[in-house]
Amino acid sequence: MSAKDVQLQALVAPIADDLARMREVIAESLTSNVAAVSDMTDHIGRFRGKQLRGALVLLNANARQAATGRVVDQGELPVVAAIVELIHLATLVHDDVLDGADKRRRVASVNQRWDNQVAVLLGDLIYSRAFHLSTTLRSPLASQLLSTITQEICAGEIEQAAGRYDFEMPIETYERVATAKTGALYGAACELGFRYPDGSEFDGAEMRAFGREIGLAFQIIDDLIDLEGDEKLAGKSTGTDVEDGKVTLAVLHVYANADPGTRAKIRDAYTLQGLDEKPGGRLAHLRSVCDLGPGCEVARARASELVESSRHRLKRLPEGPWRTALFTLSEFVLERRW
Amino acid sequence: MSAKDVQLQALVAPIADDLARMREVIAESLTSNVAAVSDMTDHIGRFRGKQLRGALVLLNANARQAATGRVVDQGELPVVAAIVELIHLATLVHDDVLDGADKRRRVASVNQRWDNQVAVLLGDLIYSRAFHLSTTLRSPLASQLLSTITQEICAGEIEQAAGRYDFEMPIETYERVATAKTGALYGAACELGFRYPDGSEFDGAEMRAFGREIGLAFQIIDDLIDLEGDEKLAGKSTGTDVEDGKVTLAVLHVYANADPGTRAKIRDAYTLQGLDEKPGGRLAHLRSVCDLGPGCEVARARASELVESSRHRLKRLPEGPWRTALFTLSEFVLERRW
Repeated sequence: MSAKDVQLQALVAPIADDLARMREVIAESLTSNVAAVSDMTDHIGRFRGKQLRGALVLLNANARQAATGRVVDQGELPVVAAIVELIHLATLVHDDVLDGADKRRRVASVNQRWDNQVAVLLGDLIYSRAFHLSTTLRSPLASQLLSTITQEICAGEIEQAAGRYDFEMPIETYERVATAKTGALYGAACELGFRYPDGSEFDGAEMRAFGREIGLAFQIIDDLIDLEGDEKLAGKSTGTDVEDGKVTLAVLHVYANADPGTRAKIRDAYTLQGLDEKPGGRLAHLRSVCDLGPGCEVARARASELVESSRHRLKRLPEGPWRTALFTLSEFVLERRW
Repeated sequence: MSAKDVQLQALVAPIADDLARMREVIAESLTSNVAAVSDMTDHIGRFRGKQLRGALVLLNANARQAATGRVVDQGELPVVAAIVELIHLATLVHDDVLDGADKRRRVASVNQRWDNQVAVLLGDLIYSRAFHLSTTLRSPLASQLLSTITQEICAGEIEQAAGRYDFEMPIETYERVATAKTGALYGAACELGFRYPDGSEFDGAEMRAFGREIGLAFQIIDDLIDLEGDEKLAGKSTGTDVEDGKVTLAVLHVYANADPGTRAKIRDAYTLQGLDEKPGGRLAHLRSVCDLGPGCEVARARASELVESSRHRLKRLPEGPWRTALFTLSEFVLERRW
């Protein structure tokens, strides 16, 4: 376990009981009396991750109690946190379908085709369970907020798909898409924690903004890691954005400042046939035709700026362990993925 | 326009204004200020169909008023009907993804890969909009009921995928899957119409059962049409279930009553490589190795029995135009697809 992981564990220790309850709710939601369904949900139940979105709900709920002095009934908050995590899980399952398309193109088997179909259905099922769970709560806030945010996530992903190979995409478009993909759910997690069950929209606006900023910063860093190509650091294959035609922040900067000849070479790195099969793939080719360094610096600076801004928002909270926890959490964004 | 279409138009004439309002709500729900999204929703807005699920909501609401003598505020019912239609539309969009897999296998192009990705996201977006719309209503009934039903639909489709090429599937499994796929949403449409905003579960149980029975009958007939192979009658390509390994009611009966040699030939018709490319495909081959006639008769008799049962349920409603409309509607099920 890294030093950061130890720090993270210390950070969530005060909400450990609620996190355990959240995990129970998630596990219950993934059970099914249809064998075909439970086989799959057992499988995906293992993709647990660090569940920071759920933790953000719970940390914010405690921060709110500290801020208002009013004790909120915590009974439903682990359920709210579970719903947020289930929505995230559904998006992951559907992302896998989309990524799977690539593998399937190489090994086109009937079996894989059906896996794909079932993954679409499984994602739909998890979305439905999450929404259903939200309708069982006393307050409609989670239903309303999360169904709104889910629309933003989907629209952002569609806009991203439509903007592939667009090397002149405005920075605002990149940031809008990255915010929708990642920032929106972080923002909703913070807002829900802070408002549930009956806080006003005004009350939640600042923590929503905090969540959206750290979510956007997280996505920028995630895109950078994919581009910098250190697979050991990334813990997964890199260069996937170049393969998929996703032009991310650093490349947009490099392209904007390149001469016409270099621009053509950058476009070639994304589009020329046969590059996928060469050693290092498209990413290695891209790195050989331009210097990504200045673009990466700009992207990293932007992520720092966002985290800085998010921290200013925390100043409205009273000093104390919850504010410190949220502050520490914002640091992780700039380091490695959570 | 066929005689049946004329009859259908007469049937929905008394709810024409509410249907028009429902269509407005659907159109509003499919608009987007993200160009990439609106391009697609404009396209799918054209797949209108006869919108019988929405009509069932509205007919049931009127039947309830007639039954109870209590005037229900109709203002939100066209929205409820629109939500039901949007959920149906989302399932169609995801079905297209799954069917598209087949075409993609033959013409594996990057472009089609992305179309597929975007169709998954678009279906997710429509689901989210439908759920969000349901959270804007005064009563939580539509949210609760439809998020429950959506889970049943997804679980049914997963069970169907898991049961492909299962020639010894129990009839109850076939009917459970067909009910989940089609009956559940018809049942929810009827129940919601009858209960919204505040009727009890007991009040809605009979009309839910009516909807589930006609929905199951509809699915049985739909499967028969695919198997009987008259593409002109079907208005679409047939034999797709045989290609996809879906063993439907008529085939289950024929297989159960066949000798071991014929059983092996039936299995071959579904599974042998190269049959897709022969004239008439797998379906023609299946029809050449066994007599589907007796199985089709059993299936058709089962559909009639279900419609008969559903009609008995209508006897609890007071006589009048709404009961007549629902009765007439149940007839369509046995004829052609709506």
